[in-house]
Amino acid sequence: MHQFEDILHLIEDAINDIPLDKKPEDLYQPVKYTMALGGKRLRPTLCLMSCEMFGGNIEDALDVAIGIEVFHNFTLLHDDIMDDAPIRRGQASVFKKWDQNIAILSGDTMFALAMHKISESPIKVLKEVLDIFSDTAIEVCEGQQYDMDFESIQDVSIDEYIEMIRLKTAVLLGCSVKTGAIIAGTDKTNQDLIYEFSIKLGLAFQLKDDLLDTYGDEKVFGKKNGNDIVSNKKTFLLLKALEKANADQKSNINFLISQSSLEKSDKIKRMVNIYNQLDIQGETENKISDYYQQAEEILNDIDIDNGKKAIIKDFTQYLMKRTK
Amino acid sequence: MHQFEDILHLIEDAINDIPLDKKPEDLYQPVKYTMALGGKRLRPTLCLMSCEMFGGNIEDALDVAIGIEVFHNFTLLHDDIMDDAPIRRGQASVFKKWDQNIAILSGDTMFALAMHKISESPIKVLKEVLDIFSDTAIEVCEGQQYDMDFESIQDVSIDEYIEMIRLKTAVLLGCSVKTGAIIAGTDKTNQDLIYEFSIKLGLAFQLKDDLLDTYGDEKVFGKKNGNDIVSNKKTFLLLKALEKANADQKSNINFLISQSSLEKSDKIKRMVNIYNQLDIQGETENKISDYYQQAEEILNDIDIDNGKKAIIKDFTQYLMKRTK
Repeated sequence: MHQFEDILHLIEDAINDIPLDKKPEDLYQPVKYTMALGGKRLRPTLCLMSCEMFGGNIEDALDVAIGIEVFHNFTLLHDDIMDDAPIRRGQASVFKKWDQNIAILSGDTMFALAMHKISESPIKVLKEVLDIFSDTAIEVCEGQQYDMDFESIQDVSIDEYIEMIRLKTAVLLGCSVKTGAIIAGTDKTNQDLIYEFSIKLGLAFQLKDDLLDTYGDEKVFGKKNGNDIVSNKKTFLLLKALEKANADQKSNINFLISQSSLEKSDKIKRMVNIYNQLDIQGETENKISDYYQQAEEILNDIDIDNGKKAIIKDFTQYLMKRTK
Repeated sequence: MHQFEDILHLIEDAINDIPLDKKPEDLYQPVKYTMALGGKRLRPTLCLMSCEMFGGNIEDALDVAIGIEVFHNFTLLHDDIMDDAPIRRGQASVFKKWDQNIAILSGDTMFALAMHKISESPIKVLKEVLDIFSDTAIEVCEGQQYDMDFESIQDVSIDEYIEMIRLKTAVLLGCSVKTGAIIAGTDKTNQDLIYEFSIKLGLAFQLKDDLLDTYGDEKVFGKKNGNDIVSNKKTFLLLKALEKANADQKSNINFLISQSSLEKSDKIKRMVNIYNQLDIQGETENKISDYYQQAEEILNDIDIDNGKKAIIKDFTQYLMKRTK
């Protein structure tokens, strides 16, 4: 069995091996830049871990794992344009560093490159891998659209929010482990279980992101707290606060949301104050724990040797405890 | 053998069958709108004609043909954002009718839908079809990047221009006929010949577009002449004019290009006047004829019964004589 560090090493090497010093430079350099920005490589890691857990050969899943990572980075690149987000992983986002047209087109190219990598899947499971990947790609777009829709919808429910992050974030984690499982040749029951495991993991992961945006240690998390509050993003924290708030608190929250001229730090401070009154941090941590527990239970249900589950369990623990 | 009208009918029915009345509406309605705008359906037509010409069953190639058409329409949707083009096929382009973010994301969704359709290729040729499709998708992006690069490069050569339109336009026609040929199960030699045929056809097709933009009958062509001249687009016409011009004519051309405040109709009139002095219409028609002739010669070289080539030959003639 490969250790986490070995797997990450394999992934980084494979990413570095993608030939991107090509012409036209304004097309390929943004792709190279984006892939070099790093990140947790969560999706390819899960794909390879899943493949090995089910007795597959990690090498057989490497192209698909990289294809999924390239696809994920493509969605970030286009999301940054749509969200007008100037910073990605501490660096200028592509549309800021180059321009918007280059960002659109280099993103499109990354989708094509992702498809190229996915096509390198072992031939006997190619159709299955393609189907889950293209279904997932469509769902991810649906999730991003709901996310944008929610900006102008007043009464988003927590269920709708969870469905949005399921589509936007969790299904691609599901796709990662499921393709790994398919390539390993495990049965449909196991494929579906590991998929569901990853959906719960993905929901927990996204809620943790929401939590860190407000309550993270700024020095560790690497960015200023409160971006979601400043931009009135309807995160789990805000929706839960609106759900729990009394009339006074609700009117205070809505007042803060309606104020566009309020000084940023003041707005954050006042909103966090309300969150604290309602123990939104605790509420969110509980919800995250719920999802992690559900994920672990599903993992326990999978009918394979416990030793083989160890790495993915450790990885889940590591994600749960992360502070950035 | 199916006639042209039958093939077009099959294609329109298959496009109408794509389930697009789905949620979120702001994601799917722009896709539906784009696919309903019509167009020549050149690429799926070529795919199906090629498949049947090589003895394949047209039904086997239908999903791939539709996938290529969806991909083509995705590129137009994103190109319209990049070119800031408000009109597509006589209607508002998606980013004008909705907004830019919706245009980016519904375009991405179309790419995913295209991939989904391509994956429905007959399983025994799936890998081959995917490889040519994803290679082509990358080349189309490269072509669009070169097209944008050329806006700010002074000395674009005619060879560079031809290479740009090969990537931006011709290779997707090549992909269309080659996938049709692969699905029909013909040999590699025939696959390569029909690909090369389509490259020449695509170059002729694009040069005809350039020609019609300046010299088309406005009532028939459906849009005002001279858009390329107004936007200083480095088309074959302009590059050929610069090549043939004497010192005086060249300085006149460069003066017209440098003038941003010149009244549109005046600029067009004065540029067309120079084109006419240099017989740019004749030069372009000759170049188009050359490519069509090369395409026909390649078609003649293909070792199959002449009767089977008839429809694709007729279609080529129809494209050559088109006035819109």
